[in-house]
Amino acid sequence: MINRLIREIQKKNAPIVVGLDPTMKFIPGSVKEKAFSVYGETLQGAGEAIWQFNKEIVDAIYELVPAVKPQIAMYEQFGIEGLIAYKKTVDYCRSKGLVVIGDIKRGDIGSTSAAYAVGHLGKVQVGDNFYAPFDEDFATVNPYLGSDGVKPFLDVCKEEKKGIFILVKTSNPSSGEFQDRILSDAGNRPLYEEVGRKVDEWGKDLMGDSYSYVGAVVGATYPEMGKVLRDIMPKSMILVPGYGAQGGKGADLVHFFNEDGLGAIVNSSRGIIAAFQNEKYKDTYSEENFADAARAAVLDMKEDIASALNSKN
Amino acid sequence: MINRLIREIQKKNAPIVVGLDPTMKFIPGSVKEKAFSVYGETLQGAGEAIWQFNKEIVDAIYELVPAVKPQIAMYEQFGIEGLIAYKKTVDYCRSKGLVVIGDIKRGDIGSTSAAYAVGHLGKVQVGDNFYAPFDEDFATVNPYLGSDGVKPFLDVCKEEKKGIFILVKTSNPSSGEFQDRILSDAGNRPLYEEVGRKVDEWGKDLMGDSYSYVGAVVGATYPEMGKVLRDIMPKSMILVPGYGAQGGKGADLVHFFNEDGLGAIVNSSRGIIAAFQNEKYKDTYSEENFADAARAAVLDMKEDIASALNSKN
Repeated sequence: MINRLIREIQKKNAPIVVGLDPTMKFIPGSVKEKAFSVYGETLQGAGEAIWQFNKEIVDAIYELVPAVKPQIAMYEQFGIEGLIAYKKTVDYCRSKGLVVIGDIKRGDIGSTSAAYAVGHLGKVQVGDNFYAPFDEDFATVNPYLGSDGVKPFLDVCKEEKKGIFILVKTSNPSSGEFQDRILSDAGNRPLYEEVGRKVDEWGKDLMGDSYSYVGAVVGATYPEMGKVLRDIMPKSMILVPGYGAQGGKGADLVHFFNEDGLGAIVNSSRGIIAAFQNEKYKDTYSEENFADAARAAVLDMKEDIASALNSKN
Repeated sequence: MINRLIREIQKKNAPIVVGLDPTMKFIPGSVKEKAFSVYGETLQGAGEAIWQFNKEIVDAIYELVPAVKPQIAMYEQFGIEGLIAYKKTVDYCRSKGLVVIGDIKRGDIGSTSAAYAVGHLGKVQVGDNFYAPFDEDFATVNPYLGSDGVKPFLDVCKEEKKGIFILVKTSNPSSGEFQDRILSDAGNRPLYEEVGRKVDEWGKDLMGDSYSYVGAVVGATYPEMGKVLRDIMPKSMILVPGYGAQGGKGADLVHFFNEDGLGAIVNSSRGIIAAFQNEKYKDTYSEENFADAARAAVLDMKEDIASALNSKN
């Protein structure tokens, strides 16, 4: 799957992933009204609104980008009905040829991580049958529990040729509270570097053609740390959140890429899916044309990143 | 809810939580056959088997223990159908007067953590209506993203008078890989102590009568660390996994308790729900009597912990 992700990035010339993180306030009134007219203002109505919203966005952007990243929390907050919309979204995106990165940030003790790995990336056995319940292509994983919480994901990735992105340095303001702590038992390096070293190590046995199945999450909001981590994990694809709405800019992103022009994939969520609410697009695109606004925002993001990468070379 | 948890612990004289972590191999053949005869060997069949299994266990133990802790991964691995069984289990346990600790180990950047907090402990808005999608009483939370990943849970806990248990030192063998790292910027204390200090701080504004809404997870497998953390977080209830199947013993647990005999609640999962497969119980209880075996295992666990606490005094 890492090979496919890289091929798609090259084919579409876009190291970009669109975060499908719908909230009720990003969904145009007309989409909500239509869903509520059938299901009422219920969890089922919310799930339907999310699904229809996503579908239109995906139809508008699938030819332009290699991958999408649905954030499962935004679905899980609506309970079972929200998760049904999540699953529909995953399936639909895959049917459109998109690589799907499930932003699930799971991680637990070994036997429990195995259940998450199987449920999201692998197959679960029921009697003599096997099922792939969520069937994303990649998943994000929280490393706080250490190797035995990560290993079950590695095992499933090996079996299924899928991949994971491990949280190394997250994009949020307080990510440094624990992740930046200086480790005296590791030559006074910060914790995120140690996690980065582990990511590199975990990936060694899971190599695709040029990158490993084990990637890392490093926020666009911390470009200097991205530079260091790029060197520590040369074979890991870096998933970079925090571009756009969270403050990261194209110029901040260059350090996340390798000399081959690869090695990073930049996520934008709100900046794309809620583009119609953005000052930049709201005069051109009406609320009804939210999907066209998303498409325009993707094209602008592609240009921003391409010009940043060009000016590096 | 922390007050209620403590009242229930005192009333039932049992600082015990039963982990409802069903896997197919823990479920007796007869329960599975019945479910599969209706739904086939499908995800729905698995969900039904889990739900029927849980129901019998809960009926056998609800008078003896204050709380249950369903591990959501064990349900999520069966996709939507598994999560329906999770939700049924949560609702049924609450209807039986049990405090429900959702072992979800979620944690993300602020806006995303807010979605998890709302979905599991709070209420989500759809149009003019509000719904409580999963509605557990407590949830476990991963601290790796720092304060702004935890704060949305605190906000919802305050609003709903619910609680969280934050992963401080987990029970698994490799938990030390990151959690035990020595921080030179914190007087050479280990990371788990720093997280413990934060737990204490986060709990200060969320006090119940004697304990705060913000608890901690500390594995029974690390009793010496439990002793230190007990002092660092005097007002936090400690949820202690790792008893029984993972190797923790009653005598290891005394340090997790305060002088008031409170302050900890010990989890056992496999040791209870799969007791019928255990050497100790398999001669007395047939597979069909799995719920009676679970009840016997709860009674033995109560005695083991009570005698350990008595010998401390």
